[in-house]
Amino acid sequence: MRWLAEVHVALRPGIADPEGQTIGSALQSLGYDSVSEVRSGKLMRIAFEADDSAGAEATVADMCRRLLANPVMETASWELRADEEQQSAETVTG
Amino acid sequence: MRWLAEVHVALRPGIADPEGQTIGSALQSLGYDSVSEVRSGKLMRIAFEADDSAGAEATVADMCRRLLANPVMETASWELRADEEQQSAETVTG
Repeated sequence: MRWLAEVHVALRPGIADPEGQTIGSALQSLGYDSVSEVRSGKLMRIAFEADDSAGAEATVADMCRRLLANPVMETASWELRADEEQQSAETVTG
Repeated sequence: MRWLAEVHVALRPGIADPEGQTIGSALQSLGYDSVSEVRSGKLMRIAFEADDSAGAEATVADMCRRLLANPVMETASWELRADEEQQSAETVTG
């Protein structure tokens, strides 16, 4: 079964974020004076196979720990969903 | 009223994504053979002031169009929510 994970990797609170600060300054200089803070991060959409929801959850947690996020500076969170298109296709062909 | 927007900027389908491909190859070489595709993107958390929900929505759409995303290559989507902490603080002090 195919799963789609949307992994968000963000800097921990307190870690300096020059990219976010630059975006914030740019927004302010464009006239959005009410912008008080911008934090930047990474977004990864990962398609992979797993037998069930628990297996998929464990795989994503493991990927984040081993490669996607640096636990010293970053936090990772994710949303996981079954790939509906793939499931419909399986229903049709099955 | 303070709002938090979580803006996701992703490359349009079909646009080459070398960063995503590199992450995908790295995951496969770590043993996650079932990974079929990785697409990378940016995540920005923006705190700003707006009078109401419609105003906040319009502001974020405008920020994406003017600065945050390149409409030729990227798509932007966002989630918007009122900053609860701020609201509670206002309730307490008000």
